[in-house]
Amino acid sequence: MSTPHRPYNFSAGPAVLPEEVLRQAAEEMLDWHGSGMSVMEMSHRGKEFISIYEDAERTVRALLQVPSNFRILFMQGGGLGENAIVPMNLSRGGLVDVVVTGSWSQKSLKEAGKYADARAAASNEADGHHSLPAAAGWQLREGAAYLHICSNETIHGVEYPELPDLAALGSTAPLVMDASSHILSRPIDWSRVGALFAGAQKNIGPAGVTLVFVREDLLDRALPICPSAFNYKLVAENQSMFNTPPTYGIYIAGLVFQWIARQGGVPEMERRAIERATLVYNALDHSGGFYRNPVAPAARSRMNIPFFLADESLNDAFLAGAREAGLLQLKGHKSVGGMRASLYNAMPLAGAQALVDYLQDFARRHG
Amino acid sequence: MSTPHRPYNFSAGPAVLPEEVLRQAAEEMLDWHGSGMSVMEMSHRGKEFISIYEDAERTVRALLQVPSNFRILFMQGGGLGENAIVPMNLSRGGLVDVVVTGSWSQKSLKEAGKYADARAAASNEADGHHSLPAAAGWQLREGAAYLHICSNETIHGVEYPELPDLAALGSTAPLVMDASSHILSRPIDWSRVGALFAGAQKNIGPAGVTLVFVREDLLDRALPICPSAFNYKLVAENQSMFNTPPTYGIYIAGLVFQWIARQGGVPEMERRAIERATLVYNALDHSGGFYRNPVAPAARSRMNIPFFLADESLNDAFLAGAREAGLLQLKGHKSVGGMRASLYNAMPLAGAQALVDYLQDFARRHG
Repeated sequence: MSTPHRPYNFSAGPAVLPEEVLRQAAEEMLDWHGSGMSVMEMSHRGKEFISIYEDAERTVRALLQVPSNFRILFMQGGGLGENAIVPMNLSRGGLVDVVVTGSWSQKSLKEAGKYADARAAASNEADGHHSLPAAAGWQLREGAAYLHICSNETIHGVEYPELPDLAALGSTAPLVMDASSHILSRPIDWSRVGALFAGAQKNIGPAGVTLVFVREDLLDRALPICPSAFNYKLVAENQSMFNTPPTYGIYIAGLVFQWIARQGGVPEMERRAIERATLVYNALDHSGGFYRNPVAPAARSRMNIPFFLADESLNDAFLAGAREAGLLQLKGHKSVGGMRASLYNAMPLAGAQALVDYLQDFARRHG
Repeated sequence: MSTPHRPYNFSAGPAVLPEEVLRQAAEEMLDWHGSGMSVMEMSHRGKEFISIYEDAERTVRALLQVPSNFRILFMQGGGLGENAIVPMNLSRGGLVDVVVTGSWSQKSLKEAGKYADARAAASNEADGHHSLPAAAGWQLREGAAYLHICSNETIHGVEYPELPDLAALGSTAPLVMDASSHILSRPIDWSRVGALFAGAQKNIGPAGVTLVFVREDLLDRALPICPSAFNYKLVAENQSMFNTPPTYGIYIAGLVFQWIARQGGVPEMERRAIERATLVYNALDHSGGFYRNPVAPAARSRMNIPFFLADESLNDAFLAGAREAGLLQLKGHKSVGGMRASLYNAMPLAGAQALVDYLQDFARRHG
């Protein structure tokens, strides 16, 4: 006997959220905890919202075991915003090295060039962004203000299996990471990180919130042209309330953090991520060539799985059938085409299984 | 017989929203219009969210009668963000004149100085930000890139009764307006405006959305250091989706726009604003000196009414009694002290009346 469930939503972001979180948000919409207000209606300086903010900050710090010398900022502007905000805060107008592994790091490189001498330390462009350039070959410049990586490329489906150890590579540059599309799906080795940012709309909550984790010694490097609202030091000194923060998004993020904690924390999220991704990659790899994922196995993302039908004239039928089967938003990014299944934290295993069933069924019917 | 109602929320922002809007948002939280998704879970590039976006844009354009040569952008960063984003987009690094009428325009002046030669064209600082400097006396510099005003000062409670006509003052500079705290409460004479921005968290929706209206001929002036995510031209060319937009906030804003349209549009919002504000100012002015609003009558805001008790030792009792009477968030901004009643579009007349009743009752008991 099956329980009725919502359709499975494979959007790359904004993306599926835990149903429990949505139910709680709906229930509390008109009156949060007897306050007589919706969270949307609360002054960000009132005790009610401050408690929501502090709880969200505390919970995510615990989930990711963020050391006390890192500040956690809730900002606005998303990943593309951070592509400028990071160099305005951290580059000092000097050298910025970027490892290019897909669309997102490519964009970061380009934007950093407005504020610094930005260069690709390595690139996987020659193989279509389908592998990870070996760290031993990265061209790290002495005195670089930082090295930027995108630790999971949402569009190309490439993920670092572990963080680079820049010290071991002979570099003293802080590592800056765009972890937007896999944050909270695996532990983070903070000893290797200087700053990390993540747009919320994948594993955290609604679009419009950006989490930034900055090591305190990096807080005081902003260029004079850095807007006050996006100055890490000012934001840190004001508990993310220098500007009015995106209060409702922070509230939803807090509910998601609590949900993750209830499920068993980041280790359990990682276990589930491996389980889901293994299911789907196996189905693609054992489809007799009907489907194809182009990424080198060692670089494959657990979160975003782009794939292609050998016969692309079946694409429309594939998507229409998927929708009918309750499998939503499987169309690939317009820049690469094909399909993409995003399997974020809130995707139940049953969703990955339903996708596999559909993949096999569709291949049987059209193979 | 009275209908039960939620407490009245006088927060200056984030602020009260129409109860109908909150109810609809709660009902649609798990499944928007049969899509099987929450609005928070939708790809911003999918047809469902595009329809939400287009409806919001169309409705606010109709409500404010925005001419077709203005683009409407849904951005992130709030008013403080725009203090940098405006000069990065519009100053060309040249001259920026600012009329200082309170905290907000003061901040705009300071931030613009990072990107341009910014100067106060006039200031009401000498009288404590309690009046409006007569336009005839403004020092407008020839060749200024723009003149900035804050058309309603949320903290000091000063509002322009009409927009300045720069052409009549002999200036060709475009007028830039921060209308965050009174947008949609009165019509806008677009023939006098070059660009206008408004943080959402007063009359529009949740914090984290910023509306920007820009005349098309001003779209191509950005400084090279302007972040792509905040470049008006790029945002305009991509229907506010160059970056992932704050989708849920835009959805709520759209519901608020529809609510305003159902109520009778901006003329009806203005009628109600005058009615509410008149009630409250009358009560303050006829309190025999028990309460005091310090703003010159011709410059008084319909939206934000700061006031002071003659005996400030009664402040805590006033606020505690107010809360007990179901009147929330009346404490003044920390920079000016005292009290503040914000009477935005979503505040029912009954809320203003309940405040007046309480003002009179408290004065009777303590006078």
